[in-house]
Amino acid sequence: MKFFQVHETREVIRLIEETYASLERTEEVSLYQAFGRVLAEDIHAAEDVPGFDRSTVDGYAVRAQDTFGASDSMPSFLDLTGSIEMGKEAGSIAPAKAKYIPTGGMMPEGADAVVMVEHAEEVGSLLNVYKQAAPGENVIRKGEDLQEGQLVLRRGHRLEPQDLGVLAAVGVSRVKVFAKPIVGILSTGDEIVPPETKHLKPGEIRDINTVTLGAALQSMGAEVIYGGTVKDEFGEYLQRAQDLFEKVDLLIMSGGSSVGTRDYTVQVMEALGEPGVLVHGISIKPGKPTILAKAGRKPVIGLPGHPVSALVVFDLIVRRIVNRLFDRTSHPFDPRIRARLSRNLASAPGRSDYVRVRLEKRDGEVWAVPVFGKSGLISTLAGSHGVVEIPAPNEGLLQGEWVNVNCFVWERGIVSEEEDLSGGYAAQRGPEETSGCC
Amino acid sequence: MKFFQVHETREVIRLIEETYASLERTEEVSLYQAFGRVLAEDIHAAEDVPGFDRSTVDGYAVRAQDTFGASDSMPSFLDLTGSIEMGKEAGSIAPAKAKYIPTGGMMPEGADAVVMVEHAEEVGSLLNVYKQAAPGENVIRKGEDLQEGQLVLRRGHRLEPQDLGVLAAVGVSRVKVFAKPIVGILSTGDEIVPPETKHLKPGEIRDINTVTLGAALQSMGAEVIYGGTVKDEFGEYLQRAQDLFEKVDLLIMSGGSSVGTRDYTVQVMEALGEPGVLVHGISIKPGKPTILAKAGRKPVIGLPGHPVSALVVFDLIVRRIVNRLFDRTSHPFDPRIRARLSRNLASAPGRSDYVRVRLEKRDGEVWAVPVFGKSGLISTLAGSHGVVEIPAPNEGLLQGEWVNVNCFVWERGIVSEEEDLSGGYAAQRGPEETSGCC
Repeated sequence: MKFFQVHETREVIRLIEETYASLERTEEVSLYQAFGRVLAEDIHAAEDVPGFDRSTVDGYAVRAQDTFGASDSMPSFLDLTGSIEMGKEAGSIAPAKAKYIPTGGMMPEGADAVVMVEHAEEVGSLLNVYKQAAPGENVIRKGEDLQEGQLVLRRGHRLEPQDLGVLAAVGVSRVKVFAKPIVGILSTGDEIVPPETKHLKPGEIRDINTVTLGAALQSMGAEVIYGGTVKDEFGEYLQRAQDLFEKVDLLIMSGGSSVGTRDYTVQVMEALGEPGVLVHGISIKPGKPTILAKAGRKPVIGLPGHPVSALVVFDLIVRRIVNRLFDRTSHPFDPRIRARLSRNLASAPGRSDYVRVRLEKRDGEVWAVPVFGKSGLISTLAGSHGVVEIPAPNEGLLQGEWVNVNCFVWERGIVSEEEDLSGGYAAQRGPEETSGCC
Repeated sequence: MKFFQVHETREVIRLIEETYASLERTEEVSLYQAFGRVLAEDIHAAEDVPGFDRSTVDGYAVRAQDTFGASDSMPSFLDLTGSIEMGKEAGSIAPAKAKYIPTGGMMPEGADAVVMVEHAEEVGSLLNVYKQAAPGENVIRKGEDLQEGQLVLRRGHRLEPQDLGVLAAVGVSRVKVFAKPIVGILSTGDEIVPPETKHLKPGEIRDINTVTLGAALQSMGAEVIYGGTVKDEFGEYLQRAQDLFEKVDLLIMSGGSSVGTRDYTVQVMEALGEPGVLVHGISIKPGKPTILAKAGRKPVIGLPGHPVSALVVFDLIVRRIVNRLFDRTSHPFDPRIRARLSRNLASAPGRSDYVRVRLEKRDGEVWAVPVFGKSGLISTLAGSHGVVEIPAPNEGLLQGEWVNVNCFVWERGIVSEEEDLSGGYAAQRGPEETSGCC
């Protein structure tokens, strides 16, 4: 029997980085299919961007020196020799000549600056220039944006809309990305029945974690295999876990991780393969009974059965494991909301507490109102907008203090002053309840 | 010829709410497919949650009155008459009896409180209770979480992972959601060629907006029909726009919306149907040459050709139009980052400016560093993390001021102290450049 001790969050995060390996499966996709995928290769610019000198304004392509000294009272007089058309070769201009050029148009050979339309006047085939242009003015030079061969995006980067634009610009139309990680979810517990069960027998409750964790994994670009529910019977549990384990890159089991007579999760995890259980218990609340294991090169995770705890641990721990599979070395910024805390929150030193909060606007400020509820209340989950962390070395937070709220937001959106802050959830809990948090 | 004037952002947002209608197409999906979909119906709890009185702790189910007065020195003595098993009928207890009950177990008939294991001791078939329990203590009553018939989620709500858990809990396993809006994108411009074009001819540039806007739309749950590129030739442009218009719920055309000799976009929009163009120009920078139209009941939008402008306008305007198709009345919180501004930013009064910024950590604080670049620079787009708004009535922002950064984040993630803040984008621009912003 191994000896397990409860781990600190930071220790667990370090262990995730050090212990689990990234996926070996990759695939090639077009830019139309690449959103949200994670690069499996560094990307270098295939060519200079722009590929030619371009005008940044509507104006007249000129040799700058032909305009030196030009002013309102003493214009330069140039010959206007035509217009440059978008997407067409631009030809050239000789000294003292000019061509009309639209924004984005290609600079003609011999020209090195653009005079804006408002600083010039066409008089028949003559152009009066009323302001001198410096060499390079209103021009982007070939390769000024990105140079051929330049490193543009790194392996492990999740492709956002703007990145796809950069890839299109540099002439990369297909990219090598990590295969979507396949994640299996198995829910355990004698009382747990599938969510689609119409009529519950006494004592039964529907499986919640399968759908919440499954959706959270989908939001990260994983493919989910729903393993369903299994009773606390070792033989059956092991068989079902082994079957699912064979098909996935990461196996998540929820429930059965509290200390109890029917806790087979550790045994099942150990039976799946070496090295077995690595972490048994993390010093966070909720979420303490979390188990991390590794069987062969695959991570196997045991999450608390309680839906609130499972989702908080997903956010804090499982998210990092999935990112590890992608070799994601960088992360988007955490879209935290700054809010003022509506009441004092106590915490046990040495443990990080995560308290669910609802966000409310009061006098133009955003306040974080702790949503308390007895351990089993599901409604508090959707009724809250996110969690506030009380870090381990801290002894609590004070009323009125500015805190960061880690929002349960899986896609970004914009909220304006006028908009409703309550979310779509109608069953708001009443005044702060006094029973303990999850 | 209609008379158009530049509109203020707030005016445009109000017009979007008032003018465009929500989709009529809906479909029914299971909870496994429902993540990110938008409800087309209000959801009421199909039953009480929990469906039976449950224990919130491991302990002993008792009649509270049998424990009144119990203390360490004067325990109550009860008969232990068995254990309650998870997921099973709990039977009943008579006065002065107790049953072991696990967390989440069903309360037996006759019991109204649970004594925690640490406050009791088994002595053979006797149970010594060392602490009195109040009626209801450590118990969640039937329907205490959610009551049958209660409004749980509203039409127009986007289903997040936690919402799916609530639906599972209340016995709703299929939901009616809005069909995915079908959005068509057409890129116009004589110089624009498809992104997969290998070798550019002089003056040509690859289409960027198709892939950036397409991905942004995908992130909102839309289905995208990529209409490709079209030259500035009215007949061809109109034909292609009409063909695409027939297939979609929303048509987006990018490019061709600057004032110029080849601006056919307004004509095409007018030709698609009544009432035609509603807004021609919005007082924002970048993004002024944005056009909103309506043909029949469908929105038709003209976006600036410049990729940075197009994406900023998408975020501010198009996002709201897509949400309008879903009848989304509530929005998730805007995951803005608070940061300190690294330099003064000026703005023209009467116009809202959006300045791209890169986020940097300095001495533990997050700073927003304006990323300036000439109008055509694509690299600044991926090199920035988001935009800072300088609101219209404002004359600028001061160095050191705390600002909200609207991040270009399309999925949430967590960044810790140790992690790299640079994003995956390797081609960071050097020190702040002095040329104007987009």
